[in-house]
Amino acid sequence: MTDILDRVKNTALQAKIVTAEEAAQLINPNDKVGISGFTPSGYAKAVPLALAKRMESDPFQIDLWTGASVGDEADGALTRVNGIHRRFPYQTNSDTRKALNSGKINYIDMHLSAMAQNIRYGFYGDLDVAIIEAVCINEDGSIVPSTSVGNSPTFVSQAKKVIVEVNTSQPLSLVGMHDIYEPINPPHRQPIPLVTPGDRIGTEGIPCDPDKIVAVVPCDITDKTRPLAPIDDDAKAMSHHLIKFFENEIKEGRLPENLLPLQSGVGSVANAVISGLAEGPFTDLSIYTEVIQDGMFDLIDAGKVTVCSGTALSPSPDGLKRFYDNIDEYRKKIILRPQEISNNPGIARRIGVIAMNTAIEFDILGNVNSTHIMGSKMMNGVGGSGDFARSAYLTIFCTNSVAKGGDISSIVPFVSHVDHCEHDTMIFCTEQGVADCRGLSPVERARTIIENCAHPDYKPMLTEYLEKALAETKNAHTPMLLGEALSWHKRFTETGSMKK
Amino acid sequence: MTDILDRVKNTALQAKIVTAEEAAQLINPNDKVGISGFTPSGYAKAVPLALAKRMESDPFQIDLWTGASVGDEADGALTRVNGIHRRFPYQTNSDTRKALNSGKINYIDMHLSAMAQNIRYGFYGDLDVAIIEAVCINEDGSIVPSTSVGNSPTFVSQAKKVIVEVNTSQPLSLVGMHDIYEPINPPHRQPIPLVTPGDRIGTEGIPCDPDKIVAVVPCDITDKTRPLAPIDDDAKAMSHHLIKFFENEIKEGRLPENLLPLQSGVGSVANAVISGLAEGPFTDLSIYTEVIQDGMFDLIDAGKVTVCSGTALSPSPDGLKRFYDNIDEYRKKIILRPQEISNNPGIARRIGVIAMNTAIEFDILGNVNSTHIMGSKMMNGVGGSGDFARSAYLTIFCTNSVAKGGDISSIVPFVSHVDHCEHDTMIFCTEQGVADCRGLSPVERARTIIENCAHPDYKPMLTEYLEKALAETKNAHTPMLLGEALSWHKRFTETGSMKK
Repeated sequence: MTDILDRVKNTALQAKIVTAEEAAQLINPNDKVGISGFTPSGYAKAVPLALAKRMESDPFQIDLWTGASVGDEADGALTRVNGIHRRFPYQTNSDTRKALNSGKINYIDMHLSAMAQNIRYGFYGDLDVAIIEAVCINEDGSIVPSTSVGNSPTFVSQAKKVIVEVNTSQPLSLVGMHDIYEPINPPHRQPIPLVTPGDRIGTEGIPCDPDKIVAVVPCDITDKTRPLAPIDDDAKAMSHHLIKFFENEIKEGRLPENLLPLQSGVGSVANAVISGLAEGPFTDLSIYTEVIQDGMFDLIDAGKVTVCSGTALSPSPDGLKRFYDNIDEYRKKIILRPQEISNNPGIARRIGVIAMNTAIEFDILGNVNSTHIMGSKMMNGVGGSGDFARSAYLTIFCTNSVAKGGDISSIVPFVSHVDHCEHDTMIFCTEQGVADCRGLSPVERARTIIENCAHPDYKPMLTEYLEKALAETKNAHTPMLLGEALSWHKRFTETGSMKK
Repeated sequence: MTDILDRVKNTALQAKIVTAEEAAQLINPNDKVGISGFTPSGYAKAVPLALAKRMESDPFQIDLWTGASVGDEADGALTRVNGIHRRFPYQTNSDTRKALNSGKINYIDMHLSAMAQNIRYGFYGDLDVAIIEAVCINEDGSIVPSTSVGNSPTFVSQAKKVIVEVNTSQPLSLVGMHDIYEPINPPHRQPIPLVTPGDRIGTEGIPCDPDKIVAVVPCDITDKTRPLAPIDDDAKAMSHHLIKFFENEIKEGRLPENLLPLQSGVGSVANAVISGLAEGPFTDLSIYTEVIQDGMFDLIDAGKVTVCSGTALSPSPDGLKRFYDNIDEYRKKIILRPQEISNNPGIARRIGVIAMNTAIEFDILGNVNSTHIMGSKMMNGVGGSGDFARSAYLTIFCTNSVAKGGDISSIVPFVSHVDHCEHDTMIFCTEQGVADCRGLSPVERARTIIENCAHPDYKPMLTEYLEKALAETKNAHTPMLLGEALSWHKRFTETGSMKK
């Protein structure tokens, strides 16, 4: 273990080294607390754990703000002591999910690129405390984050006081991988000067007045990254369909030979698609995404990627080991940015990303549900999918055509919750095939989606719905049966299957 | 009338002056035809009319691309001869609406800022002909558009051949009001260099190789602008509510004294709100919007506006006269841009617009329907509302709380079509009041919206639905009754009223 003093280079701050328990005493009831972390990577650990411990005997609540999901040491521990009143802007923890779905936590599910600016605009009130995991603190007080950047630059700039967890389990080789840039507020904002995924536009650390840092906490708890599901035949089929689709786009002159910067959502399907590209024909790829998963390492190892930009390193436990073992190679290709930059819709549009995200379900009209099960139950949140989907050069939504052993069709007459409306979508992909809906009217989209993406078990039911809707609504532009649009979901909740 | 030769300064092009009927012969069956026009302003008139006439005896169809809606000389005339196969990206014509809702026209309703780039990307195939209304053609072939810019720069750059309608009813004083900038495609696009609403970043005319211009058609048909509804008590109430809301935002330090650049949707309510600001306390306002309506002239006349940027001048007939009568004053304040720039989401976010758009209905969860009546019937289209709503500093949706004499509640349990999802909305305004939903969870939003925006006749019904949904779904994050969510719309279609 590195000595903590080697990582706290400002001597005045060395005098502020305290235990996690002491730091947790600096947090007051009803405080708004912003912690580092995006996926279970680079999140504050020791202080949230100590805070949860304190709440056991001294019950109170805080508002918890993060980059996105964080590890169980924060979300899980604080939820289990009923310590969270309001939670922004994303989560994936099973205890937190249960609590927000039972109304115990007010959860604000939002586009992840918007959080930082909304804080600076004062829309959510004043931030009391920032808790930031760092690999080190520089002499000028600037904080070098660890495996994620997330909203940390804004938490630091906006908080009244800052607590830094210096995590000695995070290698110092991470220094230099970050690129910290915080836009200023309108009406004075200037164009963000990034024009290619590899551009560096900011600083290596998060600027911070040392006087604002009230505590430095040594920590050696490791990131609790999540395993990825093995790449199955369905995922391989989707990857294969998309490679063929891209090849055709190149042939038609709509994509360059090395494609355009790739964005890929979080999770096993998205990871499989990216991993599949490692065996595809494309070279000199670039990645401009939110979360860097194992599939990106596959692409780097295959020599297919020139640069990989994201806001968090979130590999599987095996992937994390692989990353640490080869960090000097990977660091040449990887840049970690604030989520306000990694997910910036204006940049996604400027550089022309190819956005690949996972849907829970989509409908024949082209609407996508990314968040809710059967309308009411929140799964995780919209995350960054909306930041990319609407602004991408090409936007693709992937999902298995069925779930729950075939009892749920992922293609439905009408989604039970809309996170991406018909105007935001272009291309759909399931293991059955690809539906290219660019330039199609709603009825044409419906036929294309049913034909190419629906599972054979559900094709006749979807066609029957569409034809009935066309007949009863008299060939409407967007045929919809008000009494049946949500009937598939209702049937599932009542019978356990969408099948009749 | 100015002599046509004074307006066609390139002598080679003077030789290409033909009649509208001759120019219409240059269009072939199944051609993709892009015409100027955004609202009934600056649209091609003589050639579409002649083309419709030709189709009467020689039936064929074209795909019609525009900036947004256009006048009856294009949409109406071509629809009535069944001459449109596919229509991008917006319309408001009653005959066209009827045709697309009966399945005779494939209509692609889309975010208006996206059309130009999607054409350049090749997503909709090759553009055969552009028909552009101009006030004049310069010696270098560059075309000065008239009362709108829309997608004309891209139609000109991408079309195989260009027809120019030189409209002598449009005053030459319009020269100098336009600012033409066309971004290049990824991966080579640079930041659009606009940082304040008044910045000029381009050229006065649309660059065009004179050889590409195949015909120049003299025209003197005037813009058929639409009257605005008189400003009624409901509209005045909304305007009043919003002024109070803005005053409080200033007091809380969340807005500067002169607000931020204002965007306002098209139509009578939006116009009333803008007009109301002329009597409000704010000065040195700026406008960065899509369509410039009468209300903006009120603001200019009141000396409250420093600059007014849009893509189209679309006043009422009275407003148009007012504009022409004082054009030398108005031209100092007004800039007309391509819709790819006026509606650019990245710029809206950078300069921090205050977006005010009109909803057909919104629901208690914060979703907005801007397009469809009772789920199936397309009204107009999403237009630019999505370009602004998601990217704005503040996003506001306005509507009367009831319609059809009270038989329709504009606030419903679940919208019958989603154009703006819960993640894209912040503030709702009806004549009843303002619901500020920033930082609220879905259930908190529901209570706030019912309390502040719903009509008293429907408040008990909405509360009853919400409480029942909370009970039956066991306090879900997003309580939704799958069997009742769309029941209000169903009841209206069956009984003529949403009331029980």
